[in-house]
Parts: sequence; C-alpha cells; structure tokens
Amino acid sequence: MKLHIEPASPADVPMILQLIRELAEFERLLDEVKATEEQLHAGLFGPRPSAEVLMARLGPGGEVAGFALYFHNFSTFLAKPGIYLEDLYVRQKFRGQGFGATLLRHLAHLALTRGCGRLEWSVLDWNHRAIDFYKSLGAAPMNEWTLFRVTGAALERLGAAGAIDADDRTD
Amino acid sequence: MKLHIEPASPADVPMILQLIRELAEFERLLDEVKATEEQLHAGLFGPRPSAEVLMARLGPGGEVAGFALYFHNFSTFLAKPGIYLEDLYVRQKFRGQGFGATLLRHLAHLALTRGCGRLEWSVLDWNHRAIDFYKSLGAAPMNEWTLFRVTGAALERLGAAGAIDADDRTD
Repeated sequence: MKLHIEPASPADVPMILQLIRELAEFERLLDEVKATEEQLHAGLFGPRPSAEVLMARLGPGGEVAGFALYFHNFSTFLAKPGIYLEDLYVRQKFRGQGFGATLLRHLAHLALTRGCGRLEWSVLDWNHRAIDFYKSLGAAPMNEWTLFRVTGAALERLGAAGAIDADDRTD
Repeated sequence: MKLHIEPASPADVPMILQLIRELAEFERLLDEVKATEEQLHAGLFGPRPSAEVLMARLGPGGEVAGFALYFHNFSTFLAKPGIYLEDLYVRQKFRGQGFGATLLRHLAHLALTRGCGRLEWSVLDWNHRAIDFYKSLGAAPMNEWTLFRVTGAALERLGAAGAIDADDRTD
C-alpha cells in the first residue's frame, strides 16, 4: 500500500489531537497532554503558526495512517535552519509497512528543498525498536547532550525574577 | 556590575559569530563551525528570520559580556510554543558574576510574555558546573530523551529517497 502525504488543513485538527493523544499513550505520557483543539488550531493555523503538520493517508482523502508535526530550528554552527520533528506517529494497525521511513524520507527531502542543514528529533531511551530504525536510516544519536526544561511553576518563578531585572535596568 | 540586555542589531553579526566560535571552542566543537557572517545575517535578519539574539553588554553600547541565541519550538502536549535556547554564552572574563542567570531569567520572562509553556536548552554531559547551575534555577534534565540527527551526506541520501517517493506518488 502506498502512502499519500500532504500538509494538514484546519479540518484535520480534531484528528491531529487524537493522534497526539495516541502517541502520548504509547509514550506513557498521556497525563502530560493538556492540548485542546482551539490551542492546536492556533498553533498550526493561527496568524503566527508555530509548527506544520504532514498527514499520511491511504490515498487522497483516505484513512489516516499517521502524521508528522515539525517546525524549524537553527544551528549556529552551520548558521542554517534545520527541521525539528516534534512528533512522528504511525497508528498501531498500520505499522510494519515502512510508513515511518516514508514520512522521514519526505521530511529529509523537504529539509533539503528548504536549504536546511539538519533533520532532528528526540526518542525515549527505552524505545529500542525506534532507535534501531532511526540508526538504519543514517541518524546519529547525540548521546553527549541532555535537554534541560523549565516549565510550569519553575518557569513562573524564573520569569518573575527576569521581570525584576528588566524593571531595574537603569544602569 | 549590572548587565544591559537588548535584541541584537545587524551590526552585531561579526561579534555574534566571534562569540559562537568562542562557545564552540569551549565545547571542544570548533571544527563543526561552518557559519559565515553572510549566513548568520540571513538567519537572523533576512526576510524569514530563523532565530533571535539577545546581546548582553556592560551598560548601553558597552563591552559585550555574552549573548543568547534562541528560537521558538512547539509542544504538542501543551499545544503551545516554547523558547528553545540554542546558545547561551558568557565570555570567560565575565564569569562568576551571575550574568548567565540574568540572561536565563530574561528569557524566562520573555517566554511568559509570549505565552510560551516552556524554556528549553541542551547541555553537554561533561559540563557539570553548567548542569548544577541549571538545576539551581529550577530546570529539570530530560534524561530519558536522546536527540537524533541526520545531517550532511546522510541527509542527502535520505532526502533523495524522499524525492523518489514524491515523484512516484500516483496512487
């Protein structure tokens, strides 16, 4: 079966949210999903979109097999943009048919077309099947780097201190 | 001494490139820096900017103590944008004065102002001083995630396969 890949439209938002939730469940992170359709619509199709989505269907207008959500990052070492793949997901019943690889190849082609120097994404350490698969496609694990995150109450606290700095900037 | 933080202007590009090279040298990754002033100018100040820079100076128009280069990412779980800090650097002779924390607080404040749900960045595993410092500010290491990267010849190969997929999409 051949995959039909095309950019998402606003009508796809409810399905995209459902796929995000399916992926989060697979990642054992479902309790972290706070997204609503309204927020997702704004993030993808609002006046200042933050990300883009590719829908993977079984032929034009066909059943949805998966999706990819991505945005541009920037490498200072290359001084070039890259593509960062936030979510890649193929639904359970469509696995084992090479659809994940097809989506990644599509994104790599898009990255080259847009003059990007890299295609990057993150994977959970216990997902050995995914890790082996990514390596088989030529991706390299950046094992020496660790992501740090400030969110929620910690972000509020750090940001409040930043506001004080800003107000006090009279030197 | 108090830090003056403001968005970079095109005139700052040569200094930003110098700081990128200083940071890469500290990270033992100087051979990975391929950036030129022209590319950096396009990435920061071209028609479609990929990133933003904050310059940290000793007072308005004063000596440059460091910089932060960042762009927006997007969390599907929050359905909100975030700020991803690609480079944070305080020059050697200005360390130990809290300038790094001031820059991070400034960015956290900016993230909240822009409706972002997260502030994130990556750190090299051997940089224990930085890791302890980030934790003291409320940042949490996402130890269970590993970044994968496709670049250079591997990206060309993967993208070429994507082009074939696209040409052949007649189902």
